Parts: sequence; C-alpha cells; structure tokens
Amino acid sequence: MSLLDTVKLPSDLRELPAEQLPELANEIRERIVDVVSGHKGAHFGSNLGTVELTIALHRVFDTPRDQILWDVGHQAYPHKILTGRNDRFPTIREKGGLSGFLRREESEYDSFGAGHAATSISAACGMAAARDLRGEEFEVVAVIGDGSMTCGLAFEAMNNAGDTDRDLVVVLNDNQMSISNNVGAMHTYLTSMRTHPLYNRVREEVKRLIHSAPKIGSIGGLVEHFAVRVDDAIKGMFVPGMIFEELGFRYIGPVDGHNIEKLTETFAQVRNMKGPRLVHVLTTKGKGFAPAEEDQIKWHAGGGFDKVTGASVKASSGALPRYQNVFGTALTELAAEYPHLVTITAAMAEGTSTNIFAKAYPERFFDVGIAEGHAVTFAAGMATQQIKPLVAIYSTFLQRAYDSIVHDVALQDLPVLFCMDRAGIAGDDGPTHHGGIDIAYMLAIPGMTITAPKDGDEMIGLMRTGIEWNEGPFSIRWPRDSVPAACKPVKEIPAVPYGTWEILREGSDIALLGTGSVVLSALAAANELATRGVSATVVNCRFIKPLDEEMLAKLFPTHRTVLTLEEGTVANGFGAYVRARIGDRWPEVRVTSIGLPDGFTTHGERGELLDELGLSPRRIVDKVIDITGAGRPTSLRETA
Amino acid sequence: MSLLDTVKLPSDLRELPAEQLPELANEIRERIVDVVSGHKGAHFGSNLGTVELTIALHRVFDTPRDQILWDVGHQAYPHKILTGRNDRFPTIREKGGLSGFLRREESEYDSFGAGHAATSISAACGMAAARDLRGEEFEVVAVIGDGSMTCGLAFEAMNNAGDTDRDLVVVLNDNQMSISNNVGAMHTYLTSMRTHPLYNRVREEVKRLIHSAPKIGSIGGLVEHFAVRVDDAIKGMFVPGMIFEELGFRYIGPVDGHNIEKLTETFAQVRNMKGPRLVHVLTTKGKGFAPAEEDQIKWHAGGGFDKVTGASVKASSGALPRYQNVFGTALTELAAEYPHLVTITAAMAEGTSTNIFAKAYPERFFDVGIAEGHAVTFAAGMATQQIKPLVAIYSTFLQRAYDSIVHDVALQDLPVLFCMDRAGIAGDDGPTHHGGIDIAYMLAIPGMTITAPKDGDEMIGLMRTGIEWNEGPFSIRWPRDSVPAACKPVKEIPAVPYGTWEILREGSDIALLGTGSVVLSALAAANELATRGVSATVVNCRFIKPLDEEMLAKLFPTHRTVLTLEEGTVANGFGAYVRARIGDRWPEVRVTSIGLPDGFTTHGERGELLDELGLSPRRIVDKVIDITGAGRPTSLRETA
Repeated sequence: MSLLDTVKLPSDLRELPAEQLPELANEIRERIVDVVSGHKGAHFGSNLGTVELTIALHRVFDTPRDQILWDVGHQAYPHKILTGRNDRFPTIREKGGLSGFLRREESEYDSFGAGHAATSISAACGMAAARDLRGEEFEVVAVIGDGSMTCGLAFEAMNNAGDTDRDLVVVLNDNQMSISNNVGAMHTYLTSMRTHPLYNRVREEVKRLIHSAPKIGSIGGLVEHFAVRVDDAIKGMFVPGMIFEELGFRYIGPVDGHNIEKLTETFAQVRNMKGPRLVHVLTTKGKGFAPAEEDQIKWHAGGGFDKVTGASVKASSGALPRYQNVFGTALTELAAEYPHLVTITAAMAEGTSTNIFAKAYPERFFDVGIAEGHAVTFAAGMATQQIKPLVAIYSTFLQRAYDSIVHDVALQDLPVLFCMDRAGIAGDDGPTHHGGIDIAYMLAIPGMTITAPKDGDEMIGLMRTGIEWNEGPFSIRWPRDSVPAACKPVKEIPAVPYGTWEILREGSDIALLGTGSVVLSALAAANELATRGVSATVVNCRFIKPLDEEMLAKLFPTHRTVLTLEEGTVANGFGAYVRARIGDRWPEVRVTSIGLPDGFTTHGERGELLDELGLSPRRIVDKVIDITGAGRPTSLRETA
Repeated sequence: MSLLDTVKLPSDLRELPAEQLPELANEIRERIVDVVSGHKGAHFGSNLGTVELTIALHRVFDTPRDQILWDVGHQAYPHKILTGRNDRFPTIREKGGLSGFLRREESEYDSFGAGHAATSISAACGMAAARDLRGEEFEVVAVIGDGSMTCGLAFEAMNNAGDTDRDLVVVLNDNQMSISNNVGAMHTYLTSMRTHPLYNRVREEVKRLIHSAPKIGSIGGLVEHFAVRVDDAIKGMFVPGMIFEELGFRYIGPVDGHNIEKLTETFAQVRNMKGPRLVHVLTTKGKGFAPAEEDQIKWHAGGGFDKVTGASVKASSGALPRYQNVFGTALTELAAEYPHLVTITAAMAEGTSTNIFAKAYPERFFDVGIAEGHAVTFAAGMATQQIKPLVAIYSTFLQRAYDSIVHDVALQDLPVLFCMDRAGIAGDDGPTHHGGIDIAYMLAIPGMTITAPKDGDEMIGLMRTGIEWNEGPFSIRWPRDSVPAACKPVKEIPAVPYGTWEILREGSDIALLGTGSVVLSALAAANELATRGVSATVVNCRFIKPLDEEMLAKLFPTHRTVLTLEEGTVANGFGAYVRARIGDRWPEVRVTSIGLPDGFTTHGERGELLDELGLSPRRIVDKVIDITGAGRPTSLRETA
C-alpha cells in the first residue's frame, strides 16, 4: 500500500512521520510522470519542481485555514494530489475533469484562482488586509516563480505590502526560468544571489586589507581578529536578498527547494515571524526526470511520452501545422523582405513560435519577460523611430496591456502590429486562457484595424498587410489550432488588400458573414444547407474593423437575412459592430449573430467545445434552418 | 526686454551665459504663476518643481535630436515654454490651444505623448533599441516622478533596460509626492536614501567595533586606520541607490533639482557615460510659490488664484456639487451602514474624493499608489474574505487594470464594486483622460454589472445596490461634472432595484433609451420635441448590463423607432448591445444610436465638446427630427 493511498489530505500529511516524507515525494513524482506521460497534454516540468515545496508548505501551514496562493497555477499538480484530488488527477485538463490551473470552485484548498502570472502577491495582500480588518488569525502565503517577478503587478504588490507590517509570506520559487529562459535585471540579480557577489566583493576587499596589514605577532592577529568581526557584521547586513529587504520584506534564503527537512524547518521559523517575509527557494524544473531537467523549455508542458526515454509518443506524421508554427516560420521569411521589422514577445517565444524568428534574427528579437504592458509601450517607442514592431502575445494575455495599446499606441496612431495567438477557445487550458473578448476590447479602440484570417495563407497575407500598414495600429488574431490546409510558399502570398472581404459562395436565402476561424465552418455549413434547399452566401469578413463598406453595399440590396459568426463574445463583438452598420443603412435586413456566449467557457477539447457553443458546421446548419424556417419545408419534402 | 523674449528654443537656451540661467528660471516661474493664476484650471505645483530641471536638460542634451520623454506630462509646462510655445502658453488646456499634457503632433520636442503615468521608461527603452538597430546616435532621456515608480510598468521597463547595455538615461524627479502623498516601499526607500541609513548602519557597526578594540598606542591606531579603510571600501559599494544598481542601472545622485549649475554639471557627466543610468534629482513641488510649497496636494492643479496671497478667485457660491464630491460624502455616510465596506484607490484620493472617506475611516481606506492592476487584484483578494471592496478609479485609468478585472474578479464572480469617475468627456484634460471606452470594455466581461446614474441621487442609490450586490462584480460610471440637482439625504435614498430601468416620459413616436449623463439631456430634448409635435418616450437605462428585459417587452409592442444615447463609444457600447437585443426580439423596430464618435476627442470645455459631439439636448432634438422626419411636417404646420 502506497503512502498516497493514506495521505489524502494535508491533515493526513501532517500526521506522517517526517522520515516518510521523501518517500511521499517520490510517490507524487511518479504519479505525475505516470499521468502526464499517458496524457495528451499537460504541464510537467514546473510540477516536478514543486513536489517537496508543496509537501513542506502543507505540512507546516494549517491549510485550508491558512491560505496558500499558487501563482499561475501550472505548478500546482502536487498541491492537487495532496488536497483530495489524487483520484481525479488523471482527468486533468479534460472536459468535466480537473482544471489544469487553480479554481476556487474546485477545492477549498484553492484559495485564489490563477492561470495568468503574477497575481498571487496582490491577492494575498488583499486577503491579509481583510483578515486583519476582521480580526481573524491565519497565515497567507503566496508562492510565485522568479519568472512572474518580471511582471509589474508583482512589483506593485511587493511595493505595497513591504510598506506595511501586515503578516504575509511570499515564497519565491526560483527555478531560473519562465516558460522560456527567464530574462531581465531581476533575474540577473537572483542568479547573482546564488553566489552572493555583493557580499563576496566586500569580503574580498576585507581580505585584501588583511593581507596589506602588518603580519607581526599580536598586532597582525588582532587586525585579523578585528577583520573577521567586521566581516561577520557585514555578512549579517548584506546577505543576498537585499533588494527585497529594501522593499520592506524580511528575506530568508536561499533554501534548497528539494530538501524537505530544510524546507519544513525554514517554513516553521518563518511562520513564527511577523510582517512581510520572503522565502527564497531554489528548485529545478523537471526535478527527478532526467530529460526534463536537461531541456526545461521543451518539458514545461507537452503531450504523452515514454516514461523511461522521454521519447514523444505523439503520432504527428502528416498532420497539418498549427497556426503558430506557420506564423513563426512565415515571420522569419518575411523578416528578410522587411528589414525594419522586429518582433517583441512577453516570455512566450515558444508559445508564439517567435523562437523561430529569434534564432534567425536574434538582434531583432526582444523578449521583455512576463511584462505585457511594457512589451506594448516598448513597441510604441520603437514605432516612433521608423522601426516596425510586431508584438506577439496570446489574446488573453494582451488584455494585460490594454492601457498601453490605447494610450501609447492608438492615441498616437503608431503603426504597431499585434499578433494574437489563442484567440477564441484555447481548449484544455480553460477559461483563463480562452481569448474570447479581444474582438470586443479592440473594437472599442479608435483607429485599431482588426483582422482574422480564415486559413494559414490568409494569415500570411494579413501579416504582409499589417507590416506594410503605416496609418496606425493593426491586429491579427488566430486560434490555437491547426491550419485547415497546407500553406503556399510565403513568397507567393500577396498582402490582403486593406479593408476587403471576399465572397466564398454566392447564394440567395441568407448571407453568412463569418470571420477568422469560423469562416470555413460557415462554408461547410452552406454546402450542407444547399443539400437541404437553403441557398447561402458566405462572406469571409477577414477585416473586422474597418468593415468592407463596398461589399456591404453589394450584399444588401439582394439579401434580407444575415447571420454573423465569430469565435468571440456575442455581447459586443463583430456581430454587434456589423449589425449596427447594417441596421443603420438597411433597416429592413434581419440580422442574427452567433459567437462565444457571454460567459466563461470551461476547459476541454477545442472541437468539442466549439460544437457545444454552436460554432461547428453542424450547429451552424441548425441555426440557419432555425432562422430561415427552412428545416420544416425540408423535412416535409423528405416525408413527402 | 526679458530673457524669455529671446530664448524661444533650446538652441537659444544653449547660447545663454550660464550666469543668466537662474534669471531665466525666475522668468519661467513667474510666467507659470501669471498664466495659471489667471486660468480656470491647470497644473501648477508639479510645473514649478521642474523649472531648473527643464533648463538643465535642454541645456545639456541636444534636443530635439536627443529625445526627452516627460512622464505623465503635467510637469512639462516649462518644457513647453522653452520649446517655442511660450506665446501660446496662455491657451493651455483650452479648446484649440495647447494640450495640458504632451502630444507628438504639437511639437517635435514632445518625443512621446503622455497623460497616464509611468510609460516613459518603457517608451524610452523602445526608442533606444530602435536607435541602436538603425545605427543612429542620440540620447534618450526619460524623466519620471517618484510617484510613477510605484507603477508596475515602470518596474517592467527598468527590469528590462537594466539587463542590457543600452544607452538610456532615467531622471528620477523625486518630489516625494504623487498627486496625493506618495506611498509604498519604494517611496520609503527613496526617503531613506536621503539619509543613507544602510550605509549608516554599516558605519555604526564599524564604529562600535572600533570602540571595543584595545586603545593602546600603535595597535589601537592601526585598528582605527584599518577600520577607516574598511569604512571607505564599504561606502564605495553601498552608496544610496543600490536598488537601482541591483537592477542594472548606474545610479547618480541625489542632486539638488533646483540648482541649475549642479544639474548641468551632473547631466554633462551623465551624458558621457554609457549604458542604463539613473539620475536621482530632488525637487520641491510648488517651488518658489510659498502657498504651493506648503500644501502640495491642494496646489497640484487648480483654478485661478491671487498671485500674492494664493487665495482662490473662484466664484463658487451656490453652485451644485460635483459628482465626485457627492460620491465621497455619500460613501462616508454609507460606510457607517455597511461595516464591511472598504475603499481602495490608486494614488487618486483627492481626484476621486475618497479622501473624505479616508479621513473618517483611515483603517478601511487603501491607497496602493499608482498601481491600478494591484488595486483591483488586491480588491479581489479582499472579496474572498467577506469584505466588500469598492475600487474608485477614473474610467481611463481603470483600463490599466483590465486583466485584473477579467481574470481575478469576474472569472471568480467576486463582488468587487468599481466606481469610475471621469466617464465620458473629461474636458480640458483631453484625450488621455476622457473615459470613452469603459462601457465597451466592461460589456465584454462576462458577469459584469454595468450601471450609470442620471443624477446624484441615483448615483447614491446605485452605490447601495452595488454594495449590497454579492453575485459578482458591479460597476458605476459618472462624468466629471456637477450633479444636475441638489441631492437628498443619503438615508432617504433607497437602493435602485437591480436590473431595472425607469420611464421618465411616455410618448408614442420614438423611444429614447439613454444612459447616465445623457438621460436628462434626452428628457430635455423630448420636452422640446413635444413643442414640435414629436411625442418621445424617455427611458432611463441606468442598468447598461443586464438590460431590463421586462421594460423592453413593454416598450416594443408600441414603439417602432428607437434612439439610444450614451456618453461612450458608439462602436460597440450600450447602443450596440441593446440594438442586438432589440433586433433579435423585435426585428421590425428601427434603432439608431448616438454616443461618442469612434475616435479620440480633443481637450476643451466639457459642455462645448458634448454639443459638438451631438450629445446636447439641442443636438438630440436635431437627431430625432432627422430620424422621424418630423421636422418637415412641423415646419409645414408652422407655415400653414
């Protein structure tokens, strides 16, 4: 019987003899390797890195009364396993199963939902402040990675908390990585802390002085004795972590994050301290699984693999490439044609495939760390100097830079090109990662061009259009999906003429105005509808803003029924935007819209979710039949 | 003839003998006092603080070739005066006149537009990176206040720049203030730097050791000599500003920001250095005008005053209070009724009038500094602990916290109450401060309740509704304006029933669906329209989301024409949202929308701008006559 059979909850963990904890760690690690290796895609390296840390935290802190906030949440599998969810662990990231991140509704041990980086210290501050107001007593612990520390939100929270005497623990889980290699001065600082260079510099200076002192008898001895005392005094003051001390935190560390005994000892001490404290824990991503320790970027997350060799078991031969790969490759080719093009990302070189560009053009590639706001304002600065910046960020993360887009880019009409991956349903990453509102939030920004390609070729064409566009900001959105067909060579793909739509199918009963990922589904639906006697026009509205006014003028003398389709919120996205225009000019036209519902969508397989949400060809057919009333005549014909 | 008559441009300034610079500073200071004292409202204290700094920067740096980026921009009046805009300076903040902030289109010396805080270092990084890529040579200088250093964006930029060897100068204009008193650990750190406490601690320790050393003859002397050398060595390493040194910046300072000679000397040295440099300049807000030096918060900005006594010349007797004052006062009264209510602001206690609450309930008030993202995520953390957080932030600044609203609040259904001042046209502050897109960006967020009151009483009622609402986030927006009528006592104002609209006037020809500030204008228009034979129903759509479905169902069997009205973008705001709903259920109803145009609006007097944009009663009348075609029949009747 394994330990994990008995340790279901943190209360069980606290009763285990200390000498059994390393064995428990092994079991958790094996469990993670077992489940993730047989899984179609899950986070891996980050979770192997936090096994001992999780055990130590739940051992020392009285969860769920004490609140532990895991930043991002993709390192919280050990936490899930130890908080009553081991049985369901194999369902992770599957529809109806456990979330891959943290969710308050999933467990009372998930103190604060996460998915985006660097929110934990802010939220922990708020919890601690509320606790103090209510006169309650519990500990609040934020566990944050060194990658997240490049994000301004973490700094804002540290700056705020450090100026109070509020009881709060920050555990800095320092694995020297974001998903990509970590960047920035704070990272350099943390790296240097592993070897105490500042203290070393003082020490060396003291040593030099000792050597220069007279070596005769008691005088030399006295000087040396004095020097040692000065050295100690300095050491006491200039331990690593001074930057945190300067920000008002008591710094403790660094601590070996894979030594449970040291960790529990440290946390027990820290628990008895007061005020804002920061514990610096050193961990290794992929700890205990050799291939993952060696290539930490590759093993951050992934699909199934061989548990012994680490070899991928994905059968991917002949499959179509993902949009992101087409983008990364095309971008690199286009860079040769457009010498003033540069690319900026926020710690997502791999996730956006801009690592392909980075390899070819390192001097034109800027990874600014998990710092989306800075990425965009940095791009705005570049755009004032005849450089064309392309900012590659996921749809859901770009909302972190909203003010920078409005205030620094759009208000100044600067030609920054935004490339949003993961627009729409992101699949198993779930609600924190779906990009459902970018069309709406971009539409509100004056002067922003918004586009979405129907396939890979069109994405490349729109990239050209966007790179060549100098009248203001330009954005392109695409889904986390494969392109629907193999792409032509980049050189053969021209720019998409600015502001134009294209008619993919001419019909008479209804016009389907689709954009981006939904266009080909609408076309498939139209073909099916034809067999049922409904004649549909299909328009590829690759420009969401501005609308193609000429095309509208062509369509509406002849069409009286319209369905708009988008993989974005129906509340006030493309459908609402185009409806208002149609309503103003052709009030007699009846318009219906489908898109993502005005709600948060759960995690699950992308295709399955899209079908459920009404955006599959099958569901579009149903909708059109419902609108046109064509279903009944068809079935009548069938029975006739 | 004054110096300012000859010094029109920085090139003139560079030819002036150094001994005349203090006189020039006096003239600029007098000019600012002259213009602002006779002005109806402008920034004051911050501009008196930067006179010498501006002279020194333009004297040393080769502007406009060298790029100076003024953060926020409300301290850039001396810069405007010295860069060819002295003649037009009295037009500042007036329609058609100079902007109160920075605008690239206004002058080639305005390297980067500003209005929001903490963007300068990011943009400067981008400019410097672009410069290096293009092989050009010029300096990039970001001038940022200590208040802005609480903002995560500044940290993200420092963290990025400090990790490069890119030539870049940051001038930290440290006046120990935001608009309010500055807060946060960084502020405490900067204050402590004025007295070098860390270095002092080392020194004291060394002194203690010296005193404990034997005092006999040559040995004592030798120890003392050695101690002094250690002291020096330490001093060299632990100068103030180490936090910036740790972040990769070369720290220079602190420098007296009102001593032109010292400043020019320092900048000349700094100009010859390489890599990222930070110059710490100490200034005094309001410098040279005694009342402003004494009360820096009051004198940050304001209307006309007596140049000698500082007494306000505003004639404000009997005027109606501003929304913000009604809010601040009501909030303080409501706090007694709702003991779990707390208030959070981001360095805007005065601007939002939450300073009234802060005075009454200091322990329930949280000013987190210029850190909107943190303010919101902090609130989310509090909301998990049975505390009701009210976040008071201007509409335009809340967009800085967009991801925190989506990811930390809405996704978790946390009952945070957002109170947005300056929604709609903010007047003379101009496009960086208008709040034209909040309805649109809030509509996109699932589960967000969005409201706007028609007057002060309704604002108080909605505050009650929002405080009592526990099903998710709730927002209220109001304009930078006076309330249209005196308010009732808070105790007599009940909560507005959730999700309800109210009919203010029954008519038959057209339904005017207005929200917030536009409702009473619509009512006035309807009364005028009645005299012209048009019978208009006026609905106060105080809930923008959710819509009042019952009311809709009542209205549309009887109305065939609708005009929606809002002080927010027409692109995809309230109009678009309600039109879609009307279109779905009553496709035969014809809907037209007016709102703020889908573009950036210039600065100017609020009433004048609203009229120009079509939102005054007069312009609404015109629009309705245009829609209904009623103008012609009426005039026919008149001539008949």
